[in-house]
Amino acid sequence: MTIKLYCFGESGNAYKAALALELSGLDWEAKAVDFFGGETRSDDYRADVNLMGEVPVMVDGDLRYSQSGVIQDYVSEKSGKFGGRDSAERREILRWVLWDNHKLSSQAGMTRFLMNFLPEEKRPKEVIAFMLGRLNAAYAVLNTHLEGRDWIVGDSLTNADLSCCGYLYYPEPFGFDRTAWPNIDNWLGRLSDTPGWKHPYDLMPGSPADRA
Amino acid sequence: MTIKLYCFGESGNAYKAALALELSGLDWEAKAVDFFGGETRSDDYRADVNLMGEVPVMVDGDLRYSQSGVIQDYVSEKSGKFGGRDSAERREILRWVLWDNHKLSSQAGMTRFLMNFLPEEKRPKEVIAFMLGRLNAAYAVLNTHLEGRDWIVGDSLTNADLSCCGYLYYPEPFGFDRTAWPNIDNWLGRLSDTPGWKHPYDLMPGSPADRA
Repeated sequence: MTIKLYCFGESGNAYKAALALELSGLDWEAKAVDFFGGETRSDDYRADVNLMGEVPVMVDGDLRYSQSGVIQDYVSEKSGKFGGRDSAERREILRWVLWDNHKLSSQAGMTRFLMNFLPEEKRPKEVIAFMLGRLNAAYAVLNTHLEGRDWIVGDSLTNADLSCCGYLYYPEPFGFDRTAWPNIDNWLGRLSDTPGWKHPYDLMPGSPADRA
Repeated sequence: MTIKLYCFGESGNAYKAALALELSGLDWEAKAVDFFGGETRSDDYRADVNLMGEVPVMVDGDLRYSQSGVIQDYVSEKSGKFGGRDSAERREILRWVLWDNHKLSSQAGMTRFLMNFLPEEKRPKEVIAFMLGRLNAAYAVLNTHLEGRDWIVGDSLTNADLSCCGYLYYPEPFGFDRTAWPNIDNWLGRLSDTPGWKHPYDLMPGSPADRA
């Protein structure tokens, strides 16, 4: 049975799940969701797919999971990959996945949306400026942690990396300049050199170019 | 050995861990952190306690964990409580813990800080108005999910409840009116009726009254 992932190209949260599925070698396919047409926030989507009104959602036979960190946990169980080698690594991965949800991807995704996908006259300037400051603090934490490390946890690629990278390959501006954070820059290069890696716009259906 | 928790009364994120420890029956004590004096963001704290510059941090002998969701996971392993009965419940708990980190406690904590703990002339009005809108969407998701349910996952108190309630007992305004969300209101009442429950200002050291 092929795993199905509700997703769309612009969602870094969906990318975290899609990239975990792709690199795990599991058989999966994308189910395109029309986020910009309001699909995720519709009553039908909330009732039938995810009450939270979000992607990603993964369906594998009778199983249905939402939240990228939950899908990654399932992919790790099924494939034996990216979940860490012992309980210490498993908790350290969870620590970074939670931090990413709290401080990095959440704020990066929102700021990128406000700066790029809202009509120019509707962009809240004070909110954007405030979020850019918060994001800089998050980049500094990640850059410091990566000093002397190849990967966020242990010595191989894990869900911590697959979570924190969620928004960091996108070309649209949201105050993230790779060259300003050398450890993040090297780590992102290492991750995108991993055999099978794909850019979000190549891995999932839809991109700003399709809507231009 | 007594478990030590770095925390302070105003932190709903620390409350999630403190309440899990308290209700689990494990032996623990609070280590007060001077957040308002800048302790969590100091170089020493980042180097010696938590690079992320945050509470809570739990120390149990040689083990040191940060992120409330990680500490809850550890408390569940050690006490056998609040972690769910099977892997389906465990993943559904993780789903709500992640959602809480992404959409509820993160935004509630920040908004409460901006509205109450910044000097009045420094409060960013546009940011606060924007966040209040985002929070209302989050309250609606939780209130809908709790329709016909006593607890967020399964039929007993779990870490999903202990995470999502993190900021919801605080008296300072941040756009949360219990009476406007009857299912949340009932659920919070059920939780605070649990034997051993304590309000954050009774469970952890420090409160706005101490700084008045």
